[in-house]
Amino acid sequence: MYELTISLDPRAKSPLYEQIYGYIKQEIQSGRIRSGDRLPSTRALCRHLDVSRSTVELAYEQLLSEGYVEAVPYRGYFVAQLEGLCHLDSGRSEILHEQRKISEKKYEYDFTPNGVDLKSFPYNTWRRLSRECLSDDRAELFRLGDPQGEYGLRNAICSYLHQARGVKCRPDQVIVGAGSDYLLMLLIMIIGNRHKVALENPTYRQAYRLFENLSCEVCTVDMDKKGMMVDQLTASGADIAFVMPSHQYPLGIVMPIRRRLELLNWAYEKENRYIIEDDYDSEFRYKGKPIPALQGYDSIGKVIYKGTFSKSIAPAIRLGYMVLPDPLLEEYRRKCFYLSSTVSRVDQLILRKFIEEGFFERHLNKTRALYKGRHDMLLSCLKEMDAEFSVSGENAGVHLLLHFNEGISEEELIRQAAEEGVKVYGLSEYFVEEDRRKKEKGAVILLGYANMGEDKIKEAVHRLEKAWGQNRKQKD
Amino acid sequence: MYELTISLDPRAKSPLYEQIYGYIKQEIQSGRIRSGDRLPSTRALCRHLDVSRSTVELAYEQLLSEGYVEAVPYRGYFVAQLEGLCHLDSGRSEILHEQRKISEKKYEYDFTPNGVDLKSFPYNTWRRLSRECLSDDRAELFRLGDPQGEYGLRNAICSYLHQARGVKCRPDQVIVGAGSDYLLMLLIMIIGNRHKVALENPTYRQAYRLFENLSCEVCTVDMDKKGMMVDQLTASGADIAFVMPSHQYPLGIVMPIRRRLELLNWAYEKENRYIIEDDYDSEFRYKGKPIPALQGYDSIGKVIYKGTFSKSIAPAIRLGYMVLPDPLLEEYRRKCFYLSSTVSRVDQLILRKFIEEGFFERHLNKTRALYKGRHDMLLSCLKEMDAEFSVSGENAGVHLLLHFNEGISEEELIRQAAEEGVKVYGLSEYFVEEDRRKKEKGAVILLGYANMGEDKIKEAVHRLEKAWGQNRKQKD
Repeated sequence: MYELTISLDPRAKSPLYEQIYGYIKQEIQSGRIRSGDRLPSTRALCRHLDVSRSTVELAYEQLLSEGYVEAVPYRGYFVAQLEGLCHLDSGRSEILHEQRKISEKKYEYDFTPNGVDLKSFPYNTWRRLSRECLSDDRAELFRLGDPQGEYGLRNAICSYLHQARGVKCRPDQVIVGAGSDYLLMLLIMIIGNRHKVALENPTYRQAYRLFENLSCEVCTVDMDKKGMMVDQLTASGADIAFVMPSHQYPLGIVMPIRRRLELLNWAYEKENRYIIEDDYDSEFRYKGKPIPALQGYDSIGKVIYKGTFSKSIAPAIRLGYMVLPDPLLEEYRRKCFYLSSTVSRVDQLILRKFIEEGFFERHLNKTRALYKGRHDMLLSCLKEMDAEFSVSGENAGVHLLLHFNEGISEEELIRQAAEEGVKVYGLSEYFVEEDRRKKEKGAVILLGYANMGEDKIKEAVHRLEKAWGQNRKQKD
Repeated sequence: MYELTISLDPRAKSPLYEQIYGYIKQEIQSGRIRSGDRLPSTRALCRHLDVSRSTVELAYEQLLSEGYVEAVPYRGYFVAQLEGLCHLDSGRSEILHEQRKISEKKYEYDFTPNGVDLKSFPYNTWRRLSRECLSDDRAELFRLGDPQGEYGLRNAICSYLHQARGVKCRPDQVIVGAGSDYLLMLLIMIIGNRHKVALENPTYRQAYRLFENLSCEVCTVDMDKKGMMVDQLTASGADIAFVMPSHQYPLGIVMPIRRRLELLNWAYEKENRYIIEDDYDSEFRYKGKPIPALQGYDSIGKVIYKGTFSKSIAPAIRLGYMVLPDPLLEEYRRKCFYLSSTVSRVDQLILRKFIEEGFFERHLNKTRALYKGRHDMLLSCLKEMDAEFSVSGENAGVHLLLHFNEGISEEELIRQAAEEGVKVYGLSEYFVEEDRRKKEKGAVILLGYANMGEDKIKEAVHRLEKAWGQNRKQKD
């Protein structure tokens, strides 16, 4: 038995029992008290330290509950077998914080096409739902859930897609996953990588890179004003077409119904052909009737529909979904049955409540109105602007494009804007074969407005006018 | 302007303003009030409906905040441009709940080797941390975070691995991802799939399937009592070895230091060779000194170390980690820089606090003591049991193995146990080439005890004695 010489400080911040507990714990961790050793009885220790017995009991209880000490009936308290015990001095971690070199120029205004307005994120609702989800003692939420995603969430997504996007699906066709990239990886596991995947050019280059990294054969197919050219697609020999018919990224083209049907016919012609429809920001539309998803026209199961809540709720909600046609659903079950879901059940439950209790709808309507205001402001400011360009892609999404006449390069336009503190984006970085289009036509600049208030937009366009006005003057 | 004929019910559950709001919202959604239409002024409507003005104002405010209605100064309230508006009747969803056929037999006792005790999950702590993380108005948590995982969490994991497992790493080598499977997918994207991967036989079959699905060449290498046989590994022509040195699954072998060094030497011999060390349940050890991770012995960057919190905290915490050696870290940055993290920042922050504030350590010590109790109980009950088998794999992990003499098949043992309401698991399902081992030797049964209390274990072993005792009697 030990004589524990603990110097207690009754005026310390931490209560006495914690001081006792802390001391003994440290003695055990350091090896000064060894496993199997018997601790003094609570009675002996309270007398020795001149504290109340309940104080010592509290300390011992804490040690017991943490597994440092074991109680043996009629014999006393013994230090537990602690070989392999990890003692973390997390507080004293010596590892220095990584030094990240932030060499990026600071801009006053950033027209990023990937922005999302987070000020409108319904933070309080999300927090409340999160609290609700964890409020009952729902230990089952920490068990492994359904590999496809919880049924309730899939059902909610299904109803939403049906009503808002005309997607025809059942909850059992929906697979929930941690983000768009993961779902594409999963898809390639389902269909295998012995495919040639055709993407639009320019396109969402991340998808291109991903297919490439997964060892698929990849190619690009040019677009006309209606979207991917189907004859070129056929000629490419591809069997998978990756398209964004509702709002092409980055060109902003909305594929008309005729082209959609042509694309579907292409898929119908051969058994192994599929279309991946990436409906990444279909929530935002400002003009014309909404066109239902391509998936809704598909009668024989050729379209793999995918979407995400990153744009419509927040980027850090790592949650996307994929709707598989029946033949691929079978493949999924056969090949990937063993893969656990990548999204925590708590997060799935929060999102389900967010949708089912009407918050998602409200949030969408609110951000839609917000983005429309910004969209209208940007358009009207651009109209008044004294510079030579035409606008496209303005009917949907959260960015638009400025097409400049020949004579000035994209780099030059970006540089001029940067000098005025405005970050703008060139179209060329979206091309896979980079130099092709640039040579053909004039420069194209992307302006995203999701993350910029109306006043800011006004100011930023004014700066752009200053930056780009000189080009006209030089010519005059 | 409309005459809104709303029949209000003052005795209804929902307040008057909500009834007004609900009515107008529905009229807008159904298209009976069209976009651009002006709503009655609040004054006119309150008079018309005979309610207080603030009631109407509340209703309008709600409609405004949800974007159904726009306020135009000096002119009034107008129905917003709502084309593309999604109206979800989530409450009235017609989709029927999937009918899952649960044909599984119900067992009173289940010795699953994949169990985790969730009763000891520190639910209240987790909830409190979760509330803390969301308590300040931390909108930045909903922005996209670091693709590798948040620095703070990686730092905490790094300290833990260093102290508890002897892993030598810096936070920038750690990649956080949504579960073990995802991290393996990511790894294959980093190293490419033109590899031959060797796994132990028997092994964690999920990993085998995953490599197969990712179009890697896969093979198995036999084990002796020290683990994977290195000469067979060399002969296999594989360049990636997937091993579980700390506690092989399912055999429970702890690879001795000599074999570890042999394995490392194998990797050192050729430039493209790597070892994947899956340290899936190293937290639980009952006998002998802990052997540090293989990674800690590696001096030139040949070991990819991976682990998860599924076993040590809870399966639904979809969070694992991978430590990349420097050469692969470069590859990761070159090839996968564009992939966003698959884990939400909120979850990462909760886990970071859980580790840094000492809860993880306490939880580990607590479950370790808990599992040790169950382990000891199971062992002592088995010793008293009147049946012919020997025990192995009992020094670590949360399951052990019973080796039976020849003369009785695995299927028969499982069936006999099932008749007594006890589910046990056969080793043969862990073999990739299934029939090989079964022919050679006697049956092997796995008993997992993580998810069964000590009393239950006692009862279950009693049942097993009843089930298997007959075999001896028959022979007598």
